[in-house]
Formats: sequence, structure tokens, C-alpha cells
Amino acid sequence: MDEETLLKAGKAKHEEIFGEHALAWRERFSGINQDAVDYLMKYCFGAYYTRPGLDLKTRELCTVTALAVLARWPQLKSHIGGALRVGATKEEITEVLLQMENYAGWPITLTGLEVASEAFKAWDEKQQQ
Amino acid sequence: MDEETLLKAGKAKHEEIFGEHALAWRERFSGINQDAVDYLMKYCFGAYYTRPGLDLKTRELCTVTALAVLARWPQLKSHIGGALRVGATKEEITEVLLQMENYAGWPITLTGLEVASEAFKAWDEKQQQ
Amino acid sequence: MDEETLLKAGKAKHEEIFGEHALAWRERFSGINQDAVDYLMKYCFGAYYTRPGLDLKTRELCTVTALAVLARWPQLKSHIGGALRVGATKEEITEVLLQMENYAGWPITLTGLEVASEAFKAWDEKQQQ
Amino acid sequence: MDEETLLKAGKAKHEEIFGEHALAWRERFSGINQDAVDYLMKYCFGAYYTRPGLDLKTRELCTVTALAVLARWPQLKSHIGGALRVGATKEEITEVLLQMENYAGWPITLTGLEVASEAFKAWDEKQQQ
Amino acid sequence: MDEETLLKAGKAKHEEIFGEHALAWRERFSGINQDAVDYLMKYCFGAYYTRPGLDLKTRELCTVTALAVLARWPQLKSHIGGALRVGATKEEITEVLLQMENYAGWPITLTGLEVASEAFKAWDEKQQQ
Amino acid sequence: MDEETLLKAGKAKHEEIFGEHALAWRERFSGINQDAVDYLMKYCFGAYYTRPGLDLKTRELCTVTALAVLARWPQLKSHIGGALRVGATKEEITEVLLQMENYAGWPITLTGLEVASEAFKAWDEKQQQ
Repeated sequence: MDEETLLKAGKAKHEEIFGEHALAWRERFSGINQDAVDYLMKYCFGAYYTRPGLDLKTRELCTVTALAVLARWPQLKSHIGGALRVGATKEEITEVLLQMENYAGWPITLTGLEVASEAFKAWDEKQQQ
Repeated sequence: MDEETLLKAGKAKHEEIFGEHALAWRERFSGINQDAVDYLMKYCFGAYYTRPGLDLKTRELCTVTALAVLARWPQLKSHIGGALRVGATKEEITEVLLQMENYAGWPITLTGLEVASEAFKAWDEKQQQ
Repeated sequence: MDEETLLKAGKAKHEEIFGEHALAWRERFSGINQDAVDYLMKYCFGAYYTRPGLDLKTRELCTVTALAVLARWPQLKSHIGGALRVGATKEEITEVLLQMENYAGWPITLTGLEVASEAFKAWDEKQQQ
Repeated sequence: MDEETLLKAGKAKHEEIFGEHALAWRERFSGINQDAVDYLMKYCFGAYYTRPGLDLKTRELCTVTALAVLARWPQLKSHIGGALRVGATKEEITEVLLQMENYAGWPITLTGLEVASEAFKAWDEKQQQ
Repeated sequence: MDEETLLKAGKAKHEEIFGEHALAWRERFSGINQDAVDYLMKYCFGAYYTRPGLDLKTRELCTVTALAVLARWPQLKSHIGGALRVGATKEEITEVLLQMENYAGWPITLTGLEVASEAFKAWDEKQQQ
Repeated sequence: MDEETLLKAGKAKHEEIFGEHALAWRERFSGINQDAVDYLMKYCFGAYYTRPGLDLKTRELCTVTALAVLARWPQLKSHIGGALRVGATKEEITEVLLQMENYAGWPITLTGLEVASEAFKAWDEKQQQ
């Protein structure tokens, strides 16, 4: 596979997960660093997210888990939207954040649920349009 | 629900996930701290793992994710065994660890895969008995 | 002990530590996730904070330590208020944050002291009412 | 205060906390890096541990807290010995490690208690001599 | 060396790295905690930054690395300004942040680049005055 | 660029940094997970390490910094060898580890120096052959 194919596959997967936000983010971040955008599309979304062996919904729930326990809040908010878009339910996302109390403590679960609450609200508002 | 019921439910779930290792661990750790064992059974396995809203296999894959990105290696090894026992495949666990390169970096993925390799070997040996 | 008793004991301890903020927080967070509030009351404040073996002031100073070195800033601010309420002095809290330079580095100590400065100001304002 | 006084004060405090292990450690580590030993004595034990405002026992319990939640296991083991030497009880140390489940999750508490168990055993053996 | 000399050397190094921001920060933070300011000048900038064996530009690039992978965002922003002041280029700083994807994951690189973008803008504005 | 070229470039860079250890590691790890080896060669060493904008020695010193402050000890040991191979001196590596006390605390510096001591010994032994 050449790099151009990888870039294309990555962008398609990026859009499948983040919907309309994908293009807006890429346009904004290209103004900060074009290489980062290209590498993210190729070497993250193109190389990993397109792999078989784990369905996209589970992949996003595991990503939500990692972003929560590592306290990466802005990325957690985006990927909660992504998880919903690829078929996870609010209840499943909430369960993941509650479950993480056992592995990362209460502050992660509580801040995680506050972030989820904002992401859920944004999701609902868009569904009603 | 009273505490006795919670303890019982937690122990049952602990055994469902870890099989024969559950009792051996509890017996050993009771010699270190009985309260920790009781709290873990009641307030972790009894209170969280018995909740509906997330199937046990996905719950274990998210737990494997958290333990990997936080570099909790001994617990990662145990829960990889647990994930296999509740129906995850080796391929799914390997995918989770590869996917985590993007959120926690290469050392987590590489050490995670080494730990998984040991856990897979132990699992295979027991299956052949 | 049944769960109802644990919940009640947890709520009482929560109020002992956070004063009037306890009820306001619980009311607000119940709108986000009622289970998280109940679990926090039962399995954190009811199960751990009521234990003998460590006086409440030392327990809060250790909690302040953990929240600082893990960079959990919103929770650090709340628990600095809690530490003051259960008898810790501003000097003791400041010492803990200085001491942590040795175990978590200067950014933790400096941001920790900024958070403490805000928490101290809020505390002083309420004392003057 | 000149640096020589700081060094002397730091060494005295180091010995007060770690007893006979202090000299053995300094001798061993001097073979690795003499500057690190001198800086640790002056700028850690001399500058911070000699401060008033927090009694040495509480200071060590907070240090134990930080080392546990940051998963610094070898240093945790040493400082549990230090905490015992300056007057903390095994029960207080155990309580700190249990309490930390709420802020850093079960793997920290469980591995922390295993480390404490070894440190307690070493302490008991030396007391019986 | 006496402590006064160390303090003076530390302040000079602090100003070499942060320029006009050094004095403004010290004045502001003295209102929060004077001891922290003095210790930072003596035991961080005076004791470590004045050491030979690593040129100041490389020292700052390593500091930028550490602040990024540990997610210490406000300090990262300051030290990116510092790195530029002591001779690092924007390209070198950007490379460090891209390189860190491999060791700490995408959220660190992306948030790091956003922080750098702000620091670069502030730097450019001041150069044009 | 096609993936085959990226793989080749990555392997060459891997060998430039780790010398004879590169092939031994790749052979061993291929037995654990071939995809991880290929991805590491392509998307880490091929994509990032070959970039201009940061000389290889500085890139390795920043990598050593990240691995130390994140407590990734086995990888730290390997990359200290790598840093030496691409031109860093023992003194520079030691300075980086001392400098990190200020950003990640004493346990990181002390364990980091112990790891460096082992890596230096292995390096010296190989030089004498």
C-alpha cells in the first residue's frame, strides 16, 4: 500500500467516526501543523482504525477508556461523540466511566461523567436538528 | 441489599472472571489484608461488575485497556486471563494493545504485548490439561 | 450492615468534610448521574472515610497529597476546603504541597499552590460572613 | 546558611528517617552518582524535611501516599520503613493505602499493600534482633 | 557556596531563560508563597540550570519534552518561550512534540502543538515590537 | 512513498540507533507480534526518526527524557544505549536525568540513574571487545 492510499483510508475512517466534525477539525489543525494532520490520518486512523479484529464500536469504547484514565479531557469529549456515532449507547459509555473508578479512582470517573454529560448534550442537540 | 449479599455476588463474579485463580488469590491476599479482599469483593466486583449496561466481555476489554495504559502490569496479566475466560479472543486483546499505541505510546504497546504473550501461554497450557 | 446504613453514614461524613458544599454538589451531580452519587456516598465516604485507624485530618492531608501529585485540580480545590474544615491549617496544607516537589516535580507544587491560594481565599471569605 | 550546613542537616534528617539504611544507601549510590547523593541530601532532606509546619510522621505518611499513587514501588518500600521509624503505626500506613483506592484505583492499593507487607516483615525482623 | 550566592545565580538563570516574564512571575508568585519562589530560584534554577555538561538549549528542549509528556500545559507554554529565548527554533520544538507521539500518544502531541502555537504567536508579537 | 520504502528506511534508522541489538530485538519480538514490529519500523522509526529538523542525538536525548519521566524503564535502558551510539556522552545523559528531578521528582531521577548505570556498564563492556 502506498502512503496516498493510507491517507485516503484514514480520512474516510476519521469521517466515519467524527462525522461533520472531522473536516472542521482537519481544516483548523492544518493551520497549526499540517504534518500532524497527515500523520494522524495515515499512521493512526489509516493504519490502526482500519484493522479487522476489533469492531469499531468496541475500539471506540476502549479509546474512551484510555482517554478517561489518562485524563485527556478534550479528546475524551470528541471520542464520546465518536463512540455514539459508531453505535455505542449513552448507557454503555456511562458504564465504562463508572467501571473506571476501580482502576483510576473517583476524580477520573466524576470528571469523566461531567465531560460525557456535555458530549451527550451536544449529541442530542444535533439529533434534533 | 445488605453487605453479605454484595459480598456473595462479588465473589461469584470474581470466580466467573478468574476461574480457579480467584480462590487462590483470595486465600493468599487474606494473609496480607483481609479488609482489602472484602472491599474488593463487595465494592468492586459486587457493586460494579454485576451491573447491566455493559456485557462482561466488553467490560474486561475496557479493563485490559486501562491496566495497559496505566502500566499496571501484574493486574494486566490477570485480566487478560479474565478477558479470555469471559469470551474475548486473543486477536481482540492484541488489537486493543496495538490500538493503545495511539493513546499511550509504543512502550505501553510493546510491554503490553509481552505481558499478553505470557498470559496467552499460561492460558494455552491450562486448556491442554 | 445494609446498604441504606452505608449510604446514610457516607452522606454524614461527606457533609462533615465539605459542609454546605456537600448538599449543593450532590444535588447538582444527581442531574448528571445518580448512581455515581450513590456509589460515592456508599463505597467511598461510607466505606473508607468512616474507618478508624487514621484520624480525619491526616486522611484529608493524604487525600490532598494524592490529588496534587495526580494533577486532579478541581478535586484538589474541594479537598483543600475539606482539610481546613476538619482541622488542618493553611500552613500544613502548604507544607504538603511544597514537600511534593520532591516526589512529583515543580509544576505540581506551583499549580498546587495556586489552587490552594484560591481555596484559602474562598475559605476566608466564608469565615468572615 | 551555607551549603555545608544544609548538607549536614540533610544527612542527619536522612539518618533519622532511614536509620542504618541511610549510610548503606549513600555509600552504594555514591558509586553511581555522587552529585545525586549530595543534591538529595541538601535540596531534599536538608531543605524540605527540616522545615517546621508539618510533623515528621505526617510528612512521611504524605510521602507514602505520593509514592503509592505514582507507583514508585522501591521508594515506597523504603519510606514505609521510614514512616514506621518516625512513629507511624502499621495500621495507619495500611489505612493510607486502602484510602488511596478512591483516588488511584485498586491496582495501586493492592500492589501497595504487597509492598507494605514486605516492608513490615523486614521491620519486624530487625526489631527482634 | 552559600545560599545567597545560589539564590543570585538562580535568579540570573531564570531571567536568562524567561526574559521579562521572569520578574513578573516572581512578583506575582511571591504573593502566593515566597518560600516556593526562593526554593525554585535556589534549588532548581541555581542548582541545576547552572550546571555544565548540557548546553542550555538542549536542557530546555528536554524540559519541553518532560512538560509535554506529563501534560503540564501552563508550564509547557512558558518553557516553549524559554526554549526560543535560549536559541531553539520553532521547527526543533515542533519536532520534539511530533516525536513524542511515539512515547506518549496523540493527545499529548496534539494538545502540545496547540500550546506551542499560542506560545509561538506570543513570541512573534513581542519580536515585532 | 510506498510502505515498503518506509519499512526499509525505518529498519535502517533502527539499526543506526541500536546497532546489533536492533536485529536481535526484531527477531525476538516477531515471535510475539509481527504487526507490532512492522508498525514500529514503519510508523515510528521510518516516519518520525528520519525527519529533518532535529539532529538524531538531540532526538535521542528527548526520548531518554520522556522514557525517564514516564517510568518506562526497559525502554529507557535501550534508548540510553541508543543515545550513546548516536553521539551523546554519558555526562549529557546523566545531566538529563538529574535535570528531571525538577519536573518528575527524586524517584524518577534515582531509578533513572540506576538504569543508566547498567546501560553504561553494558556499553563499556562492548567497547572493550
